[in-house]
Amino acid sequence: MSAKVTRKHLFHVPEGLIYLDGNSLGPLPRSIKTRLDAVIDGEWGQLLIRAWNDAGWYEQPRRVGDRLARLIGAAAGSIVVGDTLSIQLYQALAAALSMRPGRGIVLSDSGNFPSDLYMAQGLIETLGRGHELRVLAPGEIAGAIDENTAAVMLTEVDYRSGRRHDMRDITRRAQAAGAVMIWDLAHSAGALPVDVTGANCEFAVGCTYKYLNGGPGAPAFIYVRPDIVEQAAPALRGWMGHAAPFAFEVGYRPAPDIERMRIGTPAVIQMSLLEEALKLWDDISMAQVHAASIELSQRFIAEIEARCPALELASPRDPARRGSQVSFRFEQGYAAMQALIARGVIGDFRAPDIMRFGIAPLYLDTDDVVQAAATLQQVLEQELWRNPAYQSTGVVT
Amino acid sequence: MSAKVTRKHLFHVPEGLIYLDGNSLGPLPRSIKTRLDAVIDGEWGQLLIRAWNDAGWYEQPRRVGDRLARLIGAAAGSIVVGDTLSIQLYQALAAALSMRPGRGIVLSDSGNFPSDLYMAQGLIETLGRGHELRVLAPGEIAGAIDENTAAVMLTEVDYRSGRRHDMRDITRRAQAAGAVMIWDLAHSAGALPVDVTGANCEFAVGCTYKYLNGGPGAPAFIYVRPDIVEQAAPALRGWMGHAAPFAFEVGYRPAPDIERMRIGTPAVIQMSLLEEALKLWDDISMAQVHAASIELSQRFIAEIEARCPALELASPRDPARRGSQVSFRFEQGYAAMQALIARGVIGDFRAPDIMRFGIAPLYLDTDDVVQAAATLQQVLEQELWRNPAYQSTGVVT
Repeated sequence: MSAKVTRKHLFHVPEGLIYLDGNSLGPLPRSIKTRLDAVIDGEWGQLLIRAWNDAGWYEQPRRVGDRLARLIGAAAGSIVVGDTLSIQLYQALAAALSMRPGRGIVLSDSGNFPSDLYMAQGLIETLGRGHELRVLAPGEIAGAIDENTAAVMLTEVDYRSGRRHDMRDITRRAQAAGAVMIWDLAHSAGALPVDVTGANCEFAVGCTYKYLNGGPGAPAFIYVRPDIVEQAAPALRGWMGHAAPFAFEVGYRPAPDIERMRIGTPAVIQMSLLEEALKLWDDISMAQVHAASIELSQRFIAEIEARCPALELASPRDPARRGSQVSFRFEQGYAAMQALIARGVIGDFRAPDIMRFGIAPLYLDTDDVVQAAATLQQVLEQELWRNPAYQSTGVVT
Repeated sequence: MSAKVTRKHLFHVPEGLIYLDGNSLGPLPRSIKTRLDAVIDGEWGQLLIRAWNDAGWYEQPRRVGDRLARLIGAAAGSIVVGDTLSIQLYQALAAALSMRPGRGIVLSDSGNFPSDLYMAQGLIETLGRGHELRVLAPGEIAGAIDENTAAVMLTEVDYRSGRRHDMRDITRRAQAAGAVMIWDLAHSAGALPVDVTGANCEFAVGCTYKYLNGGPGAPAFIYVRPDIVEQAAPALRGWMGHAAPFAFEVGYRPAPDIERMRIGTPAVIQMSLLEEALKLWDDISMAQVHAASIELSQRFIAEIEARCPALELASPRDPARRGSQVSFRFEQGYAAMQALIARGVIGDFRAPDIMRFGIAPLYLDTDDVVQAAATLQQVLEQELWRNPAYQSTGVVT
């Protein structure tokens, strides 16, 4: 199965490296260099300011959104790309809360990425209207939605464990109670089949530097369900979200469509790289990617469990309840991961004890995951993690 | 004078082009290509996720801020770079308003860039506490600051006319009335000597794709006066502004210093290009740049007034009251600018009738401005702007 989607030759994966951290930063698509030359020399260098028209820079946030749409089951014209995921989350939640003025609860879970929770806290304090951010255990969310819930704000796939929420079920429950549903697809887009249209959620946001391989700091995206876009009032009202940005009016009028979610001048160069990176997906079905991911993940789990008894699976064993990553608990996980990285197998670590491995079938095959497990076995059996060089904590992303 | 700062050879300015639009998008510094290769191949491609530590990506927003600091008279450690100017303005204004809870007026002027006004409107509506954005004529600001003013939010240099506020005087008046001062330096940084420390303003924000030549969509910056940074509560609380981002705590704790103004994962590639572009300034004094700008601007005005009597100077005649751009009013300005651009002289147009010319002495010399005026003379004398091809309005940035 995985043979159908593997296209390792389209990526630059350094010789001798097994890269299991595409859930944090995807590798470099080889085609990007050519596009980069065109953007730098041909557009910025040669066209200069004229490129806003002549190279289509102005339309880029929506055009790139349209290219991304199929991967998350969105209609054309329902996504714009730009800013960071934190900003897009703020934009979505602020619009959601303004649509439910009488309700005071924002419901989220302890498996959400902290930045989402911080942004929500910042918005709630800015609003100053007594909203409460209620953070529950993931399994408690479905039962906690009620008529006081203004918005349910969740990340589909837990960044530590890989546990996956049931988007359709929770969205249905949220809407049955009259709440607005916001999904963060950071660990879903490009990893799993996502269907925002079928799930019927009002908002979805996500980033593009993980499984979509857009590069470090690649822009984020926001989806707004087309039938509610006119009710979605942006809190962050930049000139590019104005109905007539080049009229330079003193007063704000939102664009009638998804363009209202644009804010300031977008990061044109990074957006161009993302646009190029997304072309890799044009002939890929997400169902195939997912099937290949499950095949590789199950094999990886089996290898680790056979070779490394000290590690405890921290991800759901059922592939249907998991994203495209596999995590294990190990008390010396930080040092063990450093030892593993030093031997050319790159995963990452999340406090307090999670060793995280991203499974991205576009550039990984069975040999890779078996070899990774064998290297980890060596690290554990020889207790290589005891080396003091692997104990000191630095920045890890 | 201008000879001292001209370094045209360090930029790619297309053959045969006179580029007077660096106040909108600066040209490509030639050194950027080498840095770009290093970032793409060496960092993203080869180091992958390890580059956050090993290539210094994590520290970049502050490190680039420190490089920028001298150009606006800021101390090291008082600036972070990231996001867009609109976002930084929101961040500064939200913090300012939370510092003056009993006051209801945000004072700005009609010469401010609309996005600043829109962001302020969005924040005020989100706050929902009855703040009022009062937009006056530029000359009325100084006299309108009173004990109800929470914040004065101005762009030093008017994006249309180039009129320049007196930063020190207005800041002094704002603070005498107990208001917080926020300066937008979009048309100042890299154009004029700026001294945020001497002016003593609480906040300053700006962009880097104009006179600083960071490239299309280059990240913005925010300055917070060091003595008040601990009182400046970010409304936009991303994980990278947390005191311990990699502890992944559920609750937000701001970093103790300027790092609290960071939000989400920054646009690493564009930030690297900006860092490279800023190196061009390391041996340049802003006083010299300004002197050269005045010399070129005065000559350009004299040439235009001698050659193009239909044009009316829209910028202050006194160079001390002007930024580094020169604007003229002409009823057929849009079409005339298109005709001029078609002849290799690039300026831009701002509704309703402003022809705008940016003077950037790093890559412009006297011959350029004389030749530009001669070309405009030809456009006007031969009424080349009557060509229907120049009448249709497209996107103009």
